[in-house]
Amino acid sequence: MSKKILIIVGSEFEDIEVLYPYYRLIEEGYEVTIAAPEDGRITGKHGYSVDAIAFNKVRPEEYVGLVIPGGRGPERIRASAREAAVKIVRHFIETGKPIAAICHGPQLLISAGAVKGLKLTSYPGIADDMIVAGGVWLDQPVVVDKNIVTARVPADIPMWMREFVKLLKKI
Amino acid sequence: MSKKILIIVGSEFEDIEVLYPYYRLIEEGYEVTIAAPEDGRITGKHGYSVDAIAFNKVRPEEYVGLVIPGGRGPERIRASAREAAVKIVRHFIETGKPIAAICHGPQLLISAGAVKGLKLTSYPGIADDMIVAGGVWLDQPVVVDKNIVTARVPADIPMWMREFVKLLKKI
Repeated sequence: MSKKILIIVGSEFEDIEVLYPYYRLIEEGYEVTIAAPEDGRITGKHGYSVDAIAFNKVRPEEYVGLVIPGGRGPERIRASAREAAVKIVRHFIETGKPIAAICHGPQLLISAGAVKGLKLTSYPGIADDMIVAGGVWLDQPVVVDKNIVTARVPADIPMWMREFVKLLKKI
Repeated sequence: MSKKILIIVGSEFEDIEVLYPYYRLIEEGYEVTIAAPEDGRITGKHGYSVDAIAFNKVRPEEYVGLVIPGGRGPERIRASAREAAVKIVRHFIETGKPIAAICHGPQLLISAGAVKGLKLTSYPGIADDMIVAGGVWLDQPVVVDKNIVTARVPADIPMWMREFVKLLKKI
């Protein structure tokens, strides 16, 4: 049986930050599930739609890794399904399973209380928030600190996924 | 020095069919160049823009592989830069270097006279054209025939790129 990976999205996600890891992890042999505040189709900033299951139906213990894409999704999640999303993210923090977050994705690491003392990067416009939350913010394409792989923008995707796949293969 | 891969696009390309191979092949360590009828930024159906060099500046002998994405790009290329594009595609046909084409991308294989006797797939709506051109059209996610890897739609991307990367690693 394939190992399972979870991607969590909110509406107006950055399409390529969802589609790239989705197809890339299938290419690598994983089964990939997308979760969102509600069941059904959900659409990104560029008009791509994906099927998602609701956060409250997710059993995080079934998954070996978590992807948190950017765009407006993370703030939308905070607005409508914060508690359910934080519960999911906390599971991966507490078990040390690999997490990949990019762009605005690290906002959910703040919501989950996971940034204090963490070396990370993010979309530069939210660097101050990461620093105020106690993170060590680095302006580089990808940062790996223990189980957490972060990147800044879509151009960093190749380096971001290369490091995430490496982490997944260690488990 | 990195080996180089060429992606050829026309306007209103299917964004994910350009962005996925672009990032994926960088992830794999290749240097990736995008070429189009003219120099400059070019935009896909979903609004993603990429930098391209003009077909007539491409030296195909510098590249180890060719990617032909779909969307409306291939028909646009036929309308405005057919001769230059065919010259590029013919180079890869004649040298047997790996070619990956998806969706409407195989239209340019027809223009290059490369479909006769070829086992391939494509967007189902152009299957008849492939058959009339002498191709053996198969309704499956990916078809590999010698140096040519074809796929139907974005959902086939993981299988398409998995086979293309395998072919590239053999050279």
